[in-house]
Parts: sequence; C-alpha cells; structure tokens
Amino acid sequence: MKKNNLLSQAPAMLNIGIDGFNDSVTANGGTLASIQWQPPGNADPALAWQLAQLIGDERIEAANDEACQRIINARPMWEDMALRADGVIPELKGARLLLHAGPPVRWRDMCGPMHGAMAGAVLYEGWAKTELEATQMLKSGQIDFAQCHDFNSVGPMTGIISASMPLIQVRNVSYGNVAYCTLNEGIGKCMRFGANGPEVIARLKWFESVLAPILKAAVRHNFDKTGGIDLKAIQSQALLMGDEVHSRNAASTALFFMAIAPALAAQPNLNSDHVHQTLDFIAKNSQFFLNYSMASCKAIMDAAHGIPYSTVVTATARNGTETGLRVSGMGASWFTAKSDLPQGLFFPGFQETDACPDIGDSAITETAGFGGCSFAASPALTLLAGGTVNDAVRYSKEMYEITVTKNPALSLPALDFAGAPCGIDVRKVVDTGIRPVVTTGIAHKDAGVGQIGAGIVRVPMEAYSKALSAIAEKF
Amino acid sequence: MKKNNLLSQAPAMLNIGIDGFNDSVTANGGTLASIQWQPPGNADPALAWQLAQLIGDERIEAANDEACQRIINARPMWEDMALRADGVIPELKGARLLLHAGPPVRWRDMCGPMHGAMAGAVLYEGWAKTELEATQMLKSGQIDFAQCHDFNSVGPMTGIISASMPLIQVRNVSYGNVAYCTLNEGIGKCMRFGANGPEVIARLKWFESVLAPILKAAVRHNFDKTGGIDLKAIQSQALLMGDEVHSRNAASTALFFMAIAPALAAQPNLNSDHVHQTLDFIAKNSQFFLNYSMASCKAIMDAAHGIPYSTVVTATARNGTETGLRVSGMGASWFTAKSDLPQGLFFPGFQETDACPDIGDSAITETAGFGGCSFAASPALTLLAGGTVNDAVRYSKEMYEITVTKNPALSLPALDFAGAPCGIDVRKVVDTGIRPVVTTGIAHKDAGVGQIGAGIVRVPMEAYSKALSAIAEKF
Repeated sequence: MKKNNLLSQAPAMLNIGIDGFNDSVTANGGTLASIQWQPPGNADPALAWQLAQLIGDERIEAANDEACQRIINARPMWEDMALRADGVIPELKGARLLLHAGPPVRWRDMCGPMHGAMAGAVLYEGWAKTELEATQMLKSGQIDFAQCHDFNSVGPMTGIISASMPLIQVRNVSYGNVAYCTLNEGIGKCMRFGANGPEVIARLKWFESVLAPILKAAVRHNFDKTGGIDLKAIQSQALLMGDEVHSRNAASTALFFMAIAPALAAQPNLNSDHVHQTLDFIAKNSQFFLNYSMASCKAIMDAAHGIPYSTVVTATARNGTETGLRVSGMGASWFTAKSDLPQGLFFPGFQETDACPDIGDSAITETAGFGGCSFAASPALTLLAGGTVNDAVRYSKEMYEITVTKNPALSLPALDFAGAPCGIDVRKVVDTGIRPVVTTGIAHKDAGVGQIGAGIVRVPMEAYSKALSAIAEKF
Repeated sequence: MKKNNLLSQAPAMLNIGIDGFNDSVTANGGTLASIQWQPPGNADPALAWQLAQLIGDERIEAANDEACQRIINARPMWEDMALRADGVIPELKGARLLLHAGPPVRWRDMCGPMHGAMAGAVLYEGWAKTELEATQMLKSGQIDFAQCHDFNSVGPMTGIISASMPLIQVRNVSYGNVAYCTLNEGIGKCMRFGANGPEVIARLKWFESVLAPILKAAVRHNFDKTGGIDLKAIQSQALLMGDEVHSRNAASTALFFMAIAPALAAQPNLNSDHVHQTLDFIAKNSQFFLNYSMASCKAIMDAAHGIPYSTVVTATARNGTETGLRVSGMGASWFTAKSDLPQGLFFPGFQETDACPDIGDSAITETAGFGGCSFAASPALTLLAGGTVNDAVRYSKEMYEITVTKNPALSLPALDFAGAPCGIDVRKVVDTGIRPVVTTGIAHKDAGVGQIGAGIVRVPMEAYSKALSAIAEKF
C-alpha cells in the first residue's frame, strides 16, 4: 500500500562507488541508480598522490605518443625460420640454459606445467635420460633459467625455448629489431602445457627435421622480392574475420596457410612428403598462427620500448605464478604480482579448481592491441571462452579507457571499424581501476594434462601499482 | 511563444503508414511519431484478398515446415569436378545450346553483358571465329538458349554454361540431388561480366587443362573415406568469420583452400607446375568460393523444391533484364519482374548510371539463407558494399519477418548466434511489403567492362505479387 505524503515516500537514491548501502535501500522499497566508481590509485592515498603528479606531465604525454606511433608504424615481417634457437640466441649455445615465459621465477615457486615443461626440455636436449633425472638436475641448480623476453623472444604458456628448438624469426622492418617465437604444437599433450612424454619430444624432433625446414623454404621463397610474409597484414585482415589473434586464430591461420602453400608448390624439389606433413599439420591446428601473432607483437612492442618517460606497457607476461609488466620508459624492470585464475568455460570433466594460474607470454598480443583489446572483433571466441557478444564489445570499449589512442591499422568491425585500443598506459589503469583484459587458454595446474578451457583474465592491479610507484620515483 | 490553453496546444500525432501528412503536422509545430506500415498485398485489394485466403492455411504451413526441414537437413558435398559440362548435362552435347543466368530472356531483351558473354561462349566453343560472326549467329537464332536453373545448375552474373566448361559438382547427400556451377574467373575482364577477348577465352581454356583437373584430383583424393568436401561446413564456419558467402567469401575461400592444398600435397605424381598455378590462382581470388557457395545452395534448394502447397521460394535468379522466382509448390514456373539497379559503392570512375540491372543466379545464396539474409555476419562487407554495421544487422533482422524459421545450422554471431533466416515465404513478403535483400556485385551495363561496384538490391515486389496470385489460383 502506498502512502501519499512526502515523509513516507520510498527513497530514490544515486549511489557512486561502493555498493554496500544498496541492499538496505532496496530492502526498504527504495529505488537506486548506481554509478561504478572507485577512488584512483587503488584506494591507496600515497599511490593516488603519485598518480596525480604523473597526470598531465607533458614529457610523459609526448613519450607515450611516440611509443604509440611506433606501435602504429611497426611492420613485422616473418623473414625466416631459425632452425636452431642457439643459432640466433648465442647465450643458449653450449649452455645448460632454458628460457621460459613470464617474469623471473625460482624452481620452487614454479607451477606444475612449468616444472613438467622444463623437465621435458631437458629430456628433449638429451641432458638427461629420465624425467626423474631431469627434475633432479633442475632442482639442484645444474640448469639455468632466464626469461624469453630478455632474448627478444616469447613463448606461449610455459613458453620454453631450448637450444635445439627452431624459432620463427620476425623483423620489424620499420625499426630493424627482430623477435622470435617457437612453433605451435597443436592441442592435447604439449610441452607448453607441461607434457613431456615421448610423443611430445617426438613432435619437437619432427619440428626440427620436417616442419621448420619446410616453413623456412616457404618464407625464403622469392624472399628478395617479397621480403617475407607480412604478419600485421594477416593480423589486421583476421580482425575483420572473427579473430582477435590471441585465443582465436582460425582466420589468421587460414590466411597464413594460403600465403605459404603456393610458395611451397612453386618449389617442386622439396620433399613432397614433408610438404604434405607440414600442410596437414597446420590445416588441422586453428591456433597455429598464435605463435606468429606473438612474435609479430613482440617485434612491434620491442620497438616501442625504451622511450624515456613513456608509461606505455610494452610487455605483459605470466609464468604461471606471477604476472609481470614491462614499461617503455622503465628499462628491463619487471613489475610483478601473483597471477589470477582465468575465468571462462571449461572442457567437459574440468573445473576452475583444476586451473593453473594465468600463464604464458601470449599477453604480448594484448599489449600490442589484440586479444582482450580487440575482443569486439571476435564474437565467435565467446563460444569457446564464455560470455556474450555484448561482453566482447564491452571489453574492447573498456580498454579504450586505459589506452593512449586508437590504432588506425587495426579495425574493429563491431565498433564501426574503430581502430583497436593502442598503448596501455600505466597511469590510466591505476586512475580508472580498469585492469587490462587478456583472452587466454586455461592450462591444467598439473603438468601435461593440457588445455582444459578458455576464458579471460585480468592483469593484477598490484603489478600496475608497483609500476606506477616506480615511475613516480624515477621521474 | 507558447500559449497555455488546451485549444492552442500544438498537436501530437501518431501516423501509421503513408507519411504525406507528416510535413503539415511538423510545419505547424506539431510533434509526430511515425510507424512504418503499408497495406498488405502491395495495396492491391485483389491481391490482399488472395493473401488473406492463403494465410493460416494448414496445408501451406505444413508444406513450408517440410521445405525448411529439407533446407536445414541438407548436406551439400563437393564430390567431383565434371571436366566438361556436356558430360553431365547431356542436352549440351553436340547441340548449339548456351545456358544463362536468371529466368528466360530473348536475345533482343538481353543486357549488354549477356550479349557479350554469349558471343564469348560461341568463340570459346569454336562455333565462330570473330565476335561479329558469333553475334550474327546468336541474333539469327542459330544458337539456342536455356536457363541454368533448368539443368540443376547455376552461374554467377551472366552465368553462361557451354558444352566444354568444367563444372563444380555438388551432391546433397541427404536427398541425393546434384547441382553444378562453373568455376570463378576472378576479377577484371571475365565472361561473367560479358568480356570475350582472347585473355578471357585463354583463361577458360586454362580452366579445362589445368585448374579443373587439379581440383578434381583434390576432391577425389581419398574420396571413399571423405565423400568429398563438406561445403555447408565451410559456409557455416565462414559465417563466424565475416563472410555472408555471397558478396564476401574471404574466409570461405581460405577454408576451402586449406581443405584442398593438403590433398594435393599428398599426391606427388600431379604436375607440380599445375598444382602451383591452381593454388596461386585461388589464393589471389577471395571470391573463388562464391561459385562453390552457389552450387551448394542450389543443391540445398532443389531438395526443398516440389513440395505441394509450399510457398517457400526455392530460386531467385536475374538475367540482367528481369528477376525471377521459383516457388517450391509451383513447379517450374518463373514469376518475373523487371530487375532493379543495385545500390551501393562504386569503384573509382564509375557511377550508378553505368550499372547493369541486377544480374546472376547468385541470389540462390539468399534463397538458402546466406547473402542478404546473413548480412549481420559480415560487417566487413559494408566496407565494399556501403552502409553501416547497423544496416547489416538490420537487414538480417528484416529477413526474419519474411522467412518461415531460423536455421540452427547457420549462426549469426552479431545476433548472439541466432540461426540465419530460413525459407523466404511468398506470403510474408506480400503481407509485410518487405522485399528480400540481395548482396551483390554490380556489373557495368556494357559488355566486358567488368565489376564496377558492390552493394545491395531488393527483389522486385511484382515478382512476389505474381507468385502469390498464381499460388492463390492454384490452391
């Protein structure tokens, strides 16, 4: 029953931020509009003060514009296959060194898949005969670890690079820098998920003897005329074709395939069985292009790194334990925090408690404007990763709030072909409280089980808070 | 100045349908809301009466459900290349007969491109030595014409099929029927646009000697195991990848390419130069799959044809002069009207007055639920054909108003993966006044200039009115 005098009228409220009051309002029959807001600086007054000092700094604005210009102008070309990693990363030669995804991590802090993959790499290199022996060597410090990112390279999931592995070689011809990534193993039992059984090792040996030489023949065919294969052109086309070129690469893989097959058919002297094996392997793996996308993005972002005063993030990388950031103006420092668990859809038989914390260097794609930044381009990804088409669009829109500009070379059809978000700005993330969205596969927490789902994860705010503090102190 | 008594208040009006009153209302300061509406039956009382008799007829509803079930259950497989059309269409053997797109049309009523293409086919078949001679033969009745659709076949634009042309052969394995289409010639000077110079004839000869035999080797490889290549699977995937598989086939062509290249690589005895030429030709022609899409749709729709009482359209075809419909329950009759001019974007140097009226059998794709029905799947097409992403979505939504059901095998990502509009119902078109949207290339009105743009066209209402009258009379 409604009374009609002013005093007894139900309250109509506007609530900004914390929603603790909401229940009491609605419980008493009130109507409520709520505006999402949180104080800048992650509610930390000291951080907010540091942020205030950095906002509007003209040196930073100019440096960030320069970083974004470099991202926009980048021209990553797949120019070669390095048949052995130690041929292009000399530190691997003759050393017992493994590169891995993400920021630094000690053996005892590594997740299950990272342990499994490292043991697998030791077996693959022939440094040990059994997994037990391999694990002992790793545990006792006989093997050194380092980060892919420190060697112009990236790796998906565990991201292991060892001396004998062939690497995709990408040159950013606008700036001259080179980036590397391993080849994609497909789905199921893979080293990138920590599997290390004989079939995993055998596949990697097949990469050496068949896949990489054939891919090399493809990319080097007519090289003087073509300069290789334009990866940004493929990525950009794929955004019009339902990929965000991180968690969905169906179109980019097909476009890539269509670029290499004629080049192979033009070379009748190649081993035809090897050509067939190669084409068959790629045609059956719709994520094959992911590793190319990663190498492309690494080549793009490395050229935007090292600009004094720039607060643009140039790497986001996870090792399954921690997520780390690198910032253009902050040199080689990693700003890290504990990795979150991805949220999404799980394959039948698996659930969230089976998931490994967020892992892999593939978030370099978000850093370059793909993946979560371009989720609006990939409604089909929601079939795999959950959420609705509206969510996909919303994620991209959110990312505009924390980026410097739009990349005119990358169009998002669902947003009327607006340029993709370009240049994640540490300041804007801390100011808005909006954490970058990463589209990601979900690995099982135990070594070797493989992918158990797909979804999204947010980069931890703590990594951004640390980066902002360090920036404020330095500048 | 606003007066405050009731009599002088500005009018607030709701207008339904004709907007002739609107101006006078707004000119006098009134506010107006307008609802689009037009009387059913295209404002023709006799037609409206016929329509009223057909709406709710249970025999029709059941027949239309059956037609749509057949569309949904269809399984069009590319099973072979017919190396000569007259090997599978016996009427072409030894006869001076040309098949063309659309409903029947006399020589003197044909558009420029149709004249040019027919002359080209006469030259290609070696029935004449010069274009002049060929045209004389055609004019004087020494060559017979018939419609592709009457021979289980379809052709894009002018759609000429002559005895020597290789044909894509598609079997709807759910129902056993077979459909044929020629191979796509690429862009520029092509017979389908009426070009008939030496390079056009040479390309068609190369189809005979190189392209078709290599494609045959691809589709027949491992045929007993695969049964061929599943075209609906490619079309359905492509809807998730920015194609509507009529005017945009970038994804479907890439998926098709990825299906055939491994099959070719598995056969080292093939002429490697021919394989290379074939792959190179397809990789450079993003509309190559269109003709496969058309054959697939013809195979789908022929199985839905011939259901007594069904008012579902089973063919929409244009000859550059007239547009014709076939209706499932109405046998081989064509219901025709003058073709409209397509609206869209023109390539530099061309304009609407250069355009040929709507032409080609490719609107079979709309009839099967692709093209304009699935425009929402293809925001990227608006870059070529004009309009906005919202327009693309709106067109698909409109098509739900005139179709029987949704096809669960074909998902439209932008509409939260709703099934594509399925089964255009003659009654609903006449009732709502909504004419089917066709996405289409725009041909120059003169023979041989080629494609000058892309856009959309609506099927003429008169064709629907005639179909409805005939249905009412028959039932």
